Amino acid sequence: MSEANHIQPVILCGGSGTRLWPVSRPALPKPFLPLLGERTLFQEAVARVADAARFAQPMIVAGAQHSAHIEAQLEGAEHRLIVEPAARNTAPAIALAACLADAEAILLVCPSDHHIADASAFRAAAEAAMRLAVEDLLVAFGIAPTRPETGYGYIRRGEAIAGGFRVAEFVEKPDLARAQHYLASGEYSWNGGIFAFRAGALLAELETHRPAMAKAVCEAVAAGREDGARFYPDGDAFAAIEGESIDYAVMEPTAAAAMVPADMGWSDIGNWASLQDALSAQVDADGNVARGHADLERCTNVLATSDGPRISAIGLEDVCIVVSRGEVLVTTRAGAQMVGTLPGAQGE
Amino acid sequence: MSEANHIQPVILCGGSGTRLWPVSRPALPKPFLPLLGERTLFQEAVARVADAARFAQPMIVAGAQHSAHIEAQLEGAEHRLIVEPAARNTAPAIALAACLADAEAILLVCPSDHHIADASAFRAAAEAAMRLAVEDLLVAFGIAPTRPETGYGYIRRGEAIAGGFRVAEFVEKPDLARAQHYLASGEYSWNGGIFAFRAGALLAELETHRPAMAKAVCEAVAAGREDGARFYPDGDAFAAIEGESIDYAVMEPTAAAAMVPADMGWSDIGNWASLQDALSAQVDADGNVARGHADLERCTNVLATSDGPRISAIGLEDVCIVVSRGEVLVTTRAGAQMVGTLPGAQGE
Repeated sequence: MSEANHIQPVILCGGSGTRLWPVSRPALPKPFLPLLGERTLFQEAVARVADAARFAQPMIVAGAQHSAHIEAQLEGAEHRLIVEPAARNTAPAIALAACLADAEAILLVCPSDHHIADASAFRAAAEAAMRLAVEDLLVAFGIAPTRPETGYGYIRRGEAIAGGFRVAEFVEKPDLARAQHYLASGEYSWNGGIFAFRAGALLAELETHRPAMAKAVCEAVAAGREDGARFYPDGDAFAAIEGESIDYAVMEPTAAAAMVPADMGWSDIGNWASLQDALSAQVDADGNVARGHADLERCTNVLATSDGPRISAIGLEDVCIVVSRGEVLVTTRAGAQMVGTLPGAQGE
Repeated sequence: MSEANHIQPVILCGGSGTRLWPVSRPALPKPFLPLLGERTLFQEAVARVADAARFAQPMIVAGAQHSAHIEAQLEGAEHRLIVEPAARNTAPAIALAACLADAEAILLVCPSDHHIADASAFRAAAEAAMRLAVEDLLVAFGIAPTRPETGYGYIRRGEAIAGGFRVAEFVEKPDLARAQHYLASGEYSWNGGIFAFRAGALLAELETHRPAMAKAVCEAVAAGREDGARFYPDGDAFAAIEGESIDYAVMEPTAAAAMVPADMGWSDIGNWASLQDALSAQVDADGNVARGHADLERCTNVLATSDGPRISAIGLEDVCIVVSRGEVLVTTRAGAQMVGTLPGAQGE
């Protein structure tokens, strides 16, 4: 498969670092934390595409404040780092990579703050996506849903095509009733934010649907500068862009959207309860996960993680306890999605 | 009332300091902590009897390891400190005070690790108890029960007498069904461990029911030594005593037991949930009590107390969170009674 070498990974590093507070924070957000094991989520993302037979060296798009973490965590791996002059959401970030890549390159866009348990399923889906992308389809990975999640966007399948489906519809985050319907219907997948497309095809669709953005990104690249492995787009041109997600700017308006199903143990580790779920391999007989010094008595389905002080807990069910950097967070699993709104997470 | 001057307070300081871990510990157990406000429970106990018109200066019975705390917390108040050579439960501790007191003195025995919200109700009960004690009845304070508590002993009322009742029966800690029955019947009070008796009457009953203990205590006092306000009973004689509670040794076997009802906002602060209840004046509209820096979101009936680190909590109900001395305890209210069994509380 000669095309395999054409897959160009594009790893996006963003996020405000509030949802996994107090461990994550703006200066060290989720991608750069070893949340599940020895490696950080960013290192996992790099390792998933570290296969020269299939993937080119990765392009990484990130803000300047994270460049040092990125270069340290790459541990010498070949890469290109595109330093965003400002955070403008995913569409401009991806367009930067598309402008810098060969127009014929197949980009595989991967968030760096997700966990994927089954890397070989990921690679198989990437190859299926590439075969659609070379036909100028814009391909989203469709994650097999496992619960009526209201925190994700959904993709409704359309016509079956070789290796995947046309996309009938991208759907916004639903309420619980609709999420339950989507799950029961079997027609919907989660939109995991992983995409594949030919660089030239993405830019052509962006030119059609968001011409001002496409123009500004091209200008920012044309006026940018190289510095070793780093590329600095022009700040003025880029900062003038109105931020927008790739979903809104391209995937929803395009007529060329496709989907490849991906059942690969995906989690966005969107909050402490999600992390607890992703740590399922480490649970004890009562469903508890303890990291650091924790004594759990009569607890079930409790996550207890500490960077030092001992946690002692009695009688809790479905609770996450996080002790980090002198902060103590205790939340129900249901409340975990509100962590980002806490005064501590807001830096107060 | 000339008799009023004859009330001799005897304040008992004991306890292992595990049930309110991590704040309490063997070196600084519950009596010596400012759990409810500015004053410690010991200081509250002293203040309750700091009325020269009614009470003599207190006798305090405590182990040597707590003498420094006691003397510091007395802040110069007149007292006599009986230093127990060994912990032998309440019967020998009280008997030491009875041997040292005038035989005609009316002893008012008070634990120092309880909270009493209504000090004037306490004093009224003390005067009622004194009037029975001068008739050589051995008087227990009967606390009006407010819930089917299984952690306390109960007193069943007998014949009504002036100012109180004869005791029909002391009952061991019941199971829940019996506790519910006791509460519904209206015939039972909690045994709060507060007693009044004439010193000579107590010693006579002890001589009858526990002659070896009575003899050993008298020997320990006879061979003891004064050192300023401190009195040191003889260690060898006292250490040979088999430890027993005053309930078992005297109050249950005696035919002279009486009870005065006391509705005085009593709590033994036996665990974190009890402390939360005793702090009812400090609760917010959702039933939460926060001491130290705590941000509580969507929480109800939560106690959060910290000696420094911020506590952030979401969605919890009926939970106690205690951060102290680098330890983090999170327990359900129901689990609070198990705190003493935690590895941390056991010094592990």
